[in-house]
Order: sequence, then structure tokens, then C-alpha cells
Amino acid sequence: MNIKVFKIGGQIVDNEADLAQFLDLFAQIEGAKILVHGGGKIASRLLERMHIEPKMHNGRRITDAETLEVVVMAYAGTINKKVVAQLQKRRCNALGFTGADGNIIEAHKRIVQDVDYGFAGDVDNVNTAVLEAVMAQQVTPVLAPITHDVNGQLLNTNADTIANSVASKLAENHEVELFYIFDKPGLLRDINDENSVVANIKVAAIDGLIDDETIFTGMLPKIANARNAVEQQVAKVVLTNIAGIEKLLNNQPVGTTITL
Amino acid sequence: MNIKVFKIGGQIVDNEADLAQFLDLFAQIEGAKILVHGGGKIASRLLERMHIEPKMHNGRRITDAETLEVVVMAYAGTINKKVVAQLQKRRCNALGFTGADGNIIEAHKRIVQDVDYGFAGDVDNVNTAVLEAVMAQQVTPVLAPITHDVNGQLLNTNADTIANSVASKLAENHEVELFYIFDKPGLLRDINDENSVVANIKVAAIDGLIDDETIFTGMLPKIANARNAVEQQVAKVVLTNIAGIEKLLNNQPVGTTITL
Repeated sequence: MNIKVFKIGGQIVDNEADLAQFLDLFAQIEGAKILVHGGGKIASRLLERMHIEPKMHNGRRITDAETLEVVVMAYAGTINKKVVAQLQKRRCNALGFTGADGNIIEAHKRIVQDVDYGFAGDVDNVNTAVLEAVMAQQVTPVLAPITHDVNGQLLNTNADTIANSVASKLAENHEVELFYIFDKPGLLRDINDENSVVANIKVAAIDGLIDDETIFTGMLPKIANARNAVEQQVAKVVLTNIAGIEKLLNNQPVGTTITL
Repeated sequence: MNIKVFKIGGQIVDNEADLAQFLDLFAQIEGAKILVHGGGKIASRLLERMHIEPKMHNGRRITDAETLEVVVMAYAGTINKKVVAQLQKRRCNALGFTGADGNIIEAHKRIVQDVDYGFAGDVDNVNTAVLEAVMAQQVTPVLAPITHDVNGQLLNTNADTIANSVASKLAENHEVELFYIFDKPGLLRDINDENSVVANIKVAAIDGLIDDETIFTGMLPKIANARNAVEQQVAKVVLTNIAGIEKLLNNQPVGTTITL
């Protein structure tokens, strides 16, 4: 199968107009595809409304039991079902998953070293059988950033990591392309010039681009994920924004493509 | 396919010990099976915690926009994912659905007559293809009591109705048995005597049993659903409690069986 995996982050999920625009375009993509969505601010808003103090460490959320409950509601309930219903409206047959559903993503609670991140899950294994069966029915899996430990415990897991893990595992038996949708048209040579997109990067060139600061700090985690994915047989990773999907639909060059 | 559809209500969902006991037994049932769960009190607790006044009419919830948001979180998020994760723990591969997922249940917002029930959904159509594909993978669908209107709107729908609609539609092409799990071993001749279970009821005899008050008022909606299901080709409907599933596993007679 040719499979396109898309990841959208919280900024798109939080913005009604951006989400609608993204879904309009995503629904038109032909062939097998998967959407991984991040969490956005809804969990924080709910925590506030329920008078639960958010716990953070260096800008990362610490998921205690109470926070996990809210995160599951918000990501697997509110956001996931909203996206699925909105895709159905656009005649794209979609089916929501957490990692527990179909046992697609097995994880373990992050080992405590310096900081106890609570119910944060690090991915151990991806089981693709159910995803493949669903895509064979022309149904699009929509993945919430929640995994489980196969012992009844749900876990909060980074959406970039989920997109990366799922794409890499599927790449063992399929032709997979991974699209990270963010707020820039691609990796920019000049952060202030949206026309300075670096069209293609070979993995071997990444270290040099970091050294000469073409890849700036904010991009490092995305680039690390991308490098990891192509090293795991993902055919290519594309970094682009919503407008990039329109180009994709018109068979135009899109964003920054990272390949082996 | 032989398919067993089980429906559990809020009383089981709300009680940790009962839910665990039910899932222990349900996980052991062989062959294709579907679990439909009700909502329970979690939505009311959340509404309270978020200072949203519950709206009721004659004991039925009125689902305004704010309430719908909470109901979706609670049923499709909290309860559905808890049940799925707990089934995975018991090595029963489960996959959660709302009616929007896989477009399995199309509904419309209830027409306003005397009372505006808000975002309450009445079922129009069940699409079984995705459920069948998933069960063919030995995966158990777990259905939350939420449907959609195929125009982006999620809707709150009674779990008994969902169980009934899904079982009836599957019965067009499969051998289907529908189990309503409640707090009695079956339909009792004497409400105070748990040994007075009526073992078998033919649909033609139901009116007589209502007239002579063997079927008391509280059972009428369940009996109406059961009658409807067997008239729609469901092979049999069984009314029983959690202990009844243990009997089922031991091939013993179980609860009250309603047939055509």
C-alpha cells in the first residue's frame, strides 16, 4: 500500500478556521492516509475550569492521575470525535483511535530519572494489522496522542512521536510518506523570508545544516524525528503548512522533503 | 458470522467492581462480539464540576450544546477508552467507536414536538462494513452512546437503541444474539424472588404478560426493544445480569430469552 501519514499540532486543532481548511484539503487526498492530531489548549482550559492546577516542568506537562483523566477526555473524546465527525461531513470515512484501540500502540510509563513526568508514555511497539484492515476498507484512521501499557493504563504521548512510530512501523511493509504540518511552508534559510524554503535535505547533510544554523533550534526536534523516520525506511518526510497540502493536491513541489 | 451483542448500562459503568467483573467474563466469550455501553453518572459529575446546570424533562436529559460537549468527552473519551484499555489488559483486542467512527451509525437530531431534547439523535441507518472488517480481525467493537448526522454534528443517543439498531442491521446477514445486561437475573414472575425467572418468552405472548402484569412497568422499554429486535431477525434477545454471563460461558440456561 502507499500510505500518507499526516501530523497536525495543537495550533491547528485550536483554530476553527485552520482546522476546517486543513480538513477540506486532507479529505481530498486520494489513497490510504492516516491523520495524527496533537492536543492543543483544550486540556488546559478544562483543567482550569475544573480548578485543577496544571503541573509543568521546563515547559513540559507533568501528567498526574487527575490530569491524565482530563487529557483522555479532551484528546480521545472532544478533539478526536470532532475531527472524525468533520471528516465524515466531508465524505472522508474516518475512524478514531487511541493507542489502546486495536492495541495499535503499546507503550510504558516513562521511567523516572530526574523528573517524574507521571502518566507519560514512551512507545514500545506499533501493531499495524487493524490499521491496515481499516485502510483496506477505504477508512482513514485518526490517531489521538494517547497510548496504553497493555495492562489497563492509558498514557499521554507526544503526537510527533506517535506519527513517527506509526509511519516507521508501516514502512516495513508499505511505501510511506510522513507529513509534518506546521506554521511555515517548510524549513527556511531565512526565518523572515517564506520564499527561502529548503526544498530537499539528505539525512547526511543535516549535521552540517545544524552547524551552519540553517536549521535553527526550534526545528531540532522535528528534524530529529524526520531523520529517525527516514532511517527507519519511511520513504520521505515532508515539513510544510496547510497551504502545502493544496500544492500536494496539485502535484506541485511541497515544503521541505527529507530523504535518506 | 455468529455475533453476540452485549449492552451494559450506567449502573455497571459507574461501579468499578461490577465493571471489572463484567469485563473479566466478557473477555472470555469466544467468537465475534460487540459491547455497547451506556453513560452512567460521569457526565453529571463533570457538569457539576464545571458548574453547568443539568437540564432535564420528565427525568430525561436535555442535551444542549454545552451538555453535548461534556457527554462526548465522558462517553467517547473517559468511559469508552477505559473499557477498551481494560479489555486489552484482559487480552481481548477491543476498538472503540462512536456512531461517527467508520460512519457506523447515521442519525438525525430529534425533531422538536412538545419538548426540544437538543442534540439527541434518533438512528436512521447502521453501516456494518467497518464493524464486520474489524471483527474479521478478531477485534471487538466497543460502542459509546454517541451518533452523528453525517453533517459534522455529534448526537447523544440512548445505548439500548444503539444495541438494538446495530444488532438488527447485522442480523440481515449474520446470526445475531442480543444480551441486555441489567441488575436482575432475568424477567421475574415475582419481583422479590430472584428464582422466579421466566426462562422463555415468545413475542406473541408479550402483550398477555403485560396485561397480567408479569412484565411490570420498569421493564416495558427493554421488552419493547427486545420485541423490535427479534422482529428484525435478531435470533434471540436475552435479559440477564453479570452472573448470567458466567452461566453463558458454562453453557447453562441464561436469564430470559425472547424469540419470535
